[in-house]
Amino acid sequence: MKNIAILSISFLLLTGCLKKSENKQVEVVVNDTTTIKTDPLPSWNEGKTKAAIIDYINDVTNKESANFIPELDRIATFDNDGTLWSEQPACFQLFFAIDRIKTMAPEHPEWKNTQPFKAVLEDDMKTLIASGEKRLMKLVMTTHAGMTTDEFEQIVTDWLKTASHPRFDKPFNELVYQPMLELLDYLRANNFKTFIVSGGGIEFMRPWVEDVYGILKDQVVGSSIATEFDYNNGNPVIKRLPELDFIDDKTGKPVGINRFIGRKPVFAAGNSDGDLQMMQWTDSNTYKSFQLYLHHTDADREWAYDRESHIGQFNKGLDEALEKEWTIIDMKNDWKTIYPFQKE
Amino acid sequence: MKNIAILSISFLLLTGCLKKSENKQVEVVVNDTTTIKTDPLPSWNEGKTKAAIIDYINDVTNKESANFIPELDRIATFDNDGTLWSEQPACFQLFFAIDRIKTMAPEHPEWKNTQPFKAVLEDDMKTLIASGEKRLMKLVMTTHAGMTTDEFEQIVTDWLKTASHPRFDKPFNELVYQPMLELLDYLRANNFKTFIVSGGGIEFMRPWVEDVYGILKDQVVGSSIATEFDYNNGNPVIKRLPELDFIDDKTGKPVGINRFIGRKPVFAAGNSDGDLQMMQWTDSNTYKSFQLYLHHTDADREWAYDRESHIGQFNKGLDEALEKEWTIIDMKNDWKTIYPFQKE
Repeated sequence: MKNIAILSISFLLLTGCLKKSENKQVEVVVNDTTTIKTDPLPSWNEGKTKAAIIDYINDVTNKESANFIPELDRIATFDNDGTLWSEQPACFQLFFAIDRIKTMAPEHPEWKNTQPFKAVLEDDMKTLIASGEKRLMKLVMTTHAGMTTDEFEQIVTDWLKTASHPRFDKPFNELVYQPMLELLDYLRANNFKTFIVSGGGIEFMRPWVEDVYGILKDQVVGSSIATEFDYNNGNPVIKRLPELDFIDDKTGKPVGINRFIGRKPVFAAGNSDGDLQMMQWTDSNTYKSFQLYLHHTDADREWAYDRESHIGQFNKGLDEALEKEWTIIDMKNDWKTIYPFQKE
Repeated sequence: MKNIAILSISFLLLTGCLKKSENKQVEVVVNDTTTIKTDPLPSWNEGKTKAAIIDYINDVTNKESANFIPELDRIATFDNDGTLWSEQPACFQLFFAIDRIKTMAPEHPEWKNTQPFKAVLEDDMKTLIASGEKRLMKLVMTTHAGMTTDEFEQIVTDWLKTASHPRFDKPFNELVYQPMLELLDYLRANNFKTFIVSGGGIEFMRPWVEDVYGILKDQVVGSSIATEFDYNNGNPVIKRLPELDFIDDKTGKPVGINRFIGRKPVFAAGNSDGDLQMMQWTDSNTYKSFQLYLHHTDADREWAYDRESHIGQFNKGLDEALEKEWTIIDMKNDWKTIYPFQKE
């Protein structure tokens, strides 16, 4: 099982694998004479989690409040794997890499006898996981480097059209959380700027996050490999190189936030120990801030895992969330719906 | 003189040192019944440069045009030193570093006898420049690293309040180009997203560019040094380390654009050979693109320099701009006003 951890880490390297409210309604002025109430978070069950979110947003966007936050400082950062979409039975970028190896295999007959490729081609996860960090990194670089950025975007786009999740038999980017989509919309409707801050690869996310999350490409922070500009006789390209550039996980998250965003967030959402430093960083904001941890508690509708999990381990983060009274989503009880395709 | 080049390069390392139109007016609908015409670029003289800009923007924002560009793809990138503000007699970040050494000197009595600090303290530019790249890098790291990001922001902010430019006796960030401020506004009014893509340090620019240029902190791409997160017993900080992270110059510009923005620009503005690859990258866009080079031709009101200059050299870029018929601003003839404080 330790090797699953190594596998996850290898992927993370470039990829990633309570207050109560009496008013949970938001006022929407439709015209001068009519005011209707709509629920901004219809897929969330009523309860302290939903109330805490709505109370916070009402408070910090209220000009009369001592906690009012100017619009420029309304920065919200979201982890991706396990926070905006599922990450089981393995982070989805690993499925991408495995599929990619299989697609590339006909051009590499030598892979039949070379690890870690042999294990991938034989669906031998045990051997794959046992093959060690160096070989796993080779797998990552083989599948993520050696092409132009345009080519990689096309490869990811094509993969999403054809691949399907082993349990749900849906394209991977349909396994996003409906309640989180609503939360993103709700924040943006209140002039928060929403960013992804993920251990996953930036260029693995950018091809689809605008359509799926409404998060713009330049609002994606993630892990990356090195790239270089090639003038290419007047047809310039940017080439992806087999070399790590930045790991946007754990202490890398505040570093990435500082580098890309240049402001400390006031709102952060995550689900694992990899998000803890982002939470701490956000919690140190002089503005009133909000830390939202998603606890995977729903083995029936999604998965249940936390302290002992080798994917998305939630242990230190859970302790600190409890101690500091950050908001913890209990997926099983707080969410009415998990995925958009399950909506009634 | 070669050493000035080294000095400039050292600073760059972390910092930076025609069609005609009959309609140059933009329609502004004030209310349902009144339409007035305003000039979006009042500090630009009428002529082919101004006309080319306005024609381009009218064309690509016109839904009926074959060259229409959807809003998400309206990415405009601007170099900073020599493009948005002046860069003579040396790039302004060098003045910052020199002033910083002088401010720090009382705590470092040993600097009186240690190069390159001795030269700085004695205003001995000749020796400073002759001290070699290694020592100059030491100067850079001494002045830009070793503090938290919050502390550095405060240092830059304080410096801008007290320092003044040797020729104009104004704060350095008043030496920005009025015509370029108008161009930035004009682009944004047409739903272009404006970015800085500069060899200068990201964190040297972020403290003031929002106020001065209206460019948001998360829309600044630049050179950077390494940073690290420190939990600091519950008062987290990000520390600036004496180690280069990324050089956003020449081939680094397309790389930085890809990393931070994730889209190819359709509009790019620069003034030197350091911007050439950004121009080439933009020029390769499948959308109709615009390359704007600022040629410093005004020795009276600003400075005149190009092919032979050791600051902002404009040689290969000038050749390619002429060959490819990119738009070249002739500062002397195209600009009515240089700086905002000179406006009538």
